[in-house]
Amino acid sequence: MPNIRQEVFTSIHEQWLSQTIEMAVENVKNGGGPFAAIVVRDGKIIGKGTNQVHVLHDPSAHAELLAIRQACETLQSIDLSDCVLYASGEPCPMCLGAAYWSTVGHIYYACGKQEVSEQTDFQNPLDRYFTDQKLPGDQRLVPFVQVTCKNALAPFYEWQKTTEQK
Amino acid sequence: MPNIRQEVFTSIHEQWLSQTIEMAVENVKNGGGPFAAIVVRDGKIIGKGTNQVHVLHDPSAHAELLAIRQACETLQSIDLSDCVLYASGEPCPMCLGAAYWSTVGHIYYACGKQEVSEQTDFQNPLDRYFTDQKLPGDQRLVPFVQVTCKNALAPFYEWQKTTEQK
Repeated sequence: MPNIRQEVFTSIHEQWLSQTIEMAVENVKNGGGPFAAIVVRDGKIIGKGTNQVHVLHDPSAHAELLAIRQACETLQSIDLSDCVLYASGEPCPMCLGAAYWSTVGHIYYACGKQEVSEQTDFQNPLDRYFTDQKLPGDQRLVPFVQVTCKNALAPFYEWQKTTEQK
Repeated sequence: MPNIRQEVFTSIHEQWLSQTIEMAVENVKNGGGPFAAIVVRDGKIIGKGTNQVHVLHDPSAHAELLAIRQACETLQSIDLSDCVLYASGEPCPMCLGAAYWSTVGHIYYACGKQEVSEQTDFQNPLDRYFTDQKLPGDQRLVPFVQVTCKNALAPFYEWQKTTEQK
């Protein structure tokens, strides 16, 4: 017997994602990138975003990151734990990071990075940057170097003072 | 014999980082988080940022991400390949992502995540979220689910049309 509850559940996610995908199509028509995302809470959209990287000259203006920022502004809180993030494409490590910092409850996405590169002309030359995050800093494409500084921990000690006053 | 060139080189990075660390200390005094970052190009600061997460209710408002955004606005370009990012603390995966998307040339930071958690009271309960990015989506703290959608690739085919017109 099919699991009806599971089917209904999946169908809701598919509806939100289809709407998100349509936003992404519209965004391309308006000169943006082929990505969109929404943040949903209690069945309502509280944050929307489409890829605006080239429009805004902002490498962080990915759909997911903008949707998360708008949702947090709506709630005046950085806690999205009771929200769901829907993304038309598989979120990149930066967007996944923003989602984690917002403690968003669930992430659903429609097409995977591999499908996009295999089935369309859309290629991302920067993906190679993300594969070497596990390498030692000096072997990465972008060298990542720790420098010894005497006052390196000063900001945290200052932070400690403010928390002690509370 | 000591390598004088290397010493001078390190000292320049230490100077930029010390300045960045001072910005982080000031930021704490003003109610922000204990982090700061700058983007430097040709010996000049073209982007600055301090942690404004709680001030702005924006989980993406990390120092590095704000500094990168400001640098890109200054240049009206998302290409920071001839720039250096200096961060008072070790950049998180989100900020590393933003740095990669901007193709920033080098990243230098002062204190590592581990030193901060071992030597100060500053702890980050969300770090555990980042350790499970390698797990299958359904086993992660934030479930990461791909949903089959008929129109999933539509935005990329739309994008293809626009590039064919060029």
